[in-house]
Amino acid sequence: MGRITVRKPILTLSVDGTQRRRPDTLAVEEPLEIRVGGSPLAVTMRTPGHDVELAAGFLVSEGVISRGDEFAGAIHCGGPGTGGVENTYNVLDVTLAPGVTPPSPDIARSFYTTSSCGVCGKASIDAVETVSAYDVSGDHAHIDLSVLAGLPDALRAQQAVFDKTGGLHAAGLFDAATGELLVLREDVGRHNAVDKVVGWAALSHRLPLRGTVLQVSGRASFELVQKAAMAGIPVLAAVSAPSSLAVDLAASRGLTLVGFSRGQTLNVYTRADRVITASDAPAADRLAGSVQA
Amino acid sequence: MGRITVRKPILTLSVDGTQRRRPDTLAVEEPLEIRVGGSPLAVTMRTPGHDVELAAGFLVSEGVISRGDEFAGAIHCGGPGTGGVENTYNVLDVTLAPGVTPPSPDIARSFYTTSSCGVCGKASIDAVETVSAYDVSGDHAHIDLSVLAGLPDALRAQQAVFDKTGGLHAAGLFDAATGELLVLREDVGRHNAVDKVVGWAALSHRLPLRGTVLQVSGRASFELVQKAAMAGIPVLAAVSAPSSLAVDLAASRGLTLVGFSRGQTLNVYTRADRVITASDAPAADRLAGSVQA
Repeated sequence: MGRITVRKPILTLSVDGTQRRRPDTLAVEEPLEIRVGGSPLAVTMRTPGHDVELAAGFLVSEGVISRGDEFAGAIHCGGPGTGGVENTYNVLDVTLAPGVTPPSPDIARSFYTTSSCGVCGKASIDAVETVSAYDVSGDHAHIDLSVLAGLPDALRAQQAVFDKTGGLHAAGLFDAATGELLVLREDVGRHNAVDKVVGWAALSHRLPLRGTVLQVSGRASFELVQKAAMAGIPVLAAVSAPSSLAVDLAASRGLTLVGFSRGQTLNVYTRADRVITASDAPAADRLAGSVQA
Repeated sequence: MGRITVRKPILTLSVDGTQRRRPDTLAVEEPLEIRVGGSPLAVTMRTPGHDVELAAGFLVSEGVISRGDEFAGAIHCGGPGTGGVENTYNVLDVTLAPGVTPPSPDIARSFYTTSSCGVCGKASIDAVETVSAYDVSGDHAHIDLSVLAGLPDALRAQQAVFDKTGGLHAAGLFDAATGELLVLREDVGRHNAVDKVVGWAALSHRLPLRGTVLQVSGRASFELVQKAAMAGIPVLAAVSAPSSLAVDLAASRGLTLVGFSRGQTLNVYTRADRVITASDAPAADRLAGSVQA
């Protein structure tokens, strides 16, 4: 759709007194209304592109579908535009496969509460454990520390739009055994970038994503751990800090959570046994004492 | 409440082979359910503390109230906990002043759509312009470039929790004329940090926030510009990139939007006439040609 970036005139000022007027490239942000069977479900501010993946990933994250064959199709449809009904490509209507239970008619409210539950962290974590179709705790994936530490650079090397705008979050899915990049998506919203990755996996019938690592460009929030768990991803690595609830949920789900991944060092918050260090080569006894948070 | 940070055991791994097991300080993230008159309105993942301000600011951002005297009070109330009803301090019930129209009974859905509207950027911007009680376009605030460029450092200097966790966003409100910090709030969510600032202002009867600058630690999204406009803040400055829709909304509202504010240089996207540079001192004719995007 060619709407991932846009150019705007800006004024760059320096405290040394220089002024420069020039066009600057910005990341596009537009709302997407996701509908299921014609009923509005959610609105997200996203970077246009990969909208079908975004919708599919959102439905996986929220527990509506857990396999690609439950997603029958999606079309962009018209909404009220300037002077009539027109297709703005900002409304996407999803058709579920026959037999798949559509989301509750209590629409947005129910989703709002599923994703953050509304009472306490404990209740939120219970809710996620109830609805997740996949168990990542038994995933025997392992990843070499040197490979894991290199993923932020690998992500950045492939991140086309960020270099131009500085304004996009990225999520990259990597094979844990080989470090190969499977898919990368960028978005103004970090939740959306992950939903696009998960949706790509759903639509290519790869769920659950056993043996993979999800590397994200920002922080690790509760919701990102939730999305990883819902897609069956055993390892989530973030460039910046995790929140307390992210660590709690990762511990509860048996997911390996990595933060402050900065090239030479990284922090492992939960299930460190999946990270192979040089010292593990002769003896794996460090695994027994791994961080379980 | 003392729940802003928490310590967890972590494992720090280096590619050079060193391993260190140590406790690390994390930013706390917990859900807050905001109710109005007993009816659930929204759930947000936030860092506990300043919850009443957060709720008040959220109500300003969403157009439910525009003055502090429309907010009669708020109490934390019980929710289902482990084994019965207990006060988790994660549910806050707001009482509006007599005569203030409560939010639509079509609860979360209506808020979800107010904040991002669901059809296109144009419609979103129209919706904001309709509901905002304050007009910032006529605000004659001016700020010296040297003061404006120093705000990110001023913010960081006061940002207590970030230094410990690396995991919190900050929003600081400054007086445009003097550069004085009026209030600073931190949160795992950047929207929440801004809502807490706006709520502080509402509860101290300072709305609209004429003559102020809101400096935020991250990027400038549509929603942050929306929150600034709803509170009557004429200048929003971000350390990182703005999105396209943020620039469009700022242009439409007559708000000065600054991005990539990095100490020595910054970018002005809209209404550059509010930024005073050394060259303006003798002649203000640059103002006529200011960037209007």
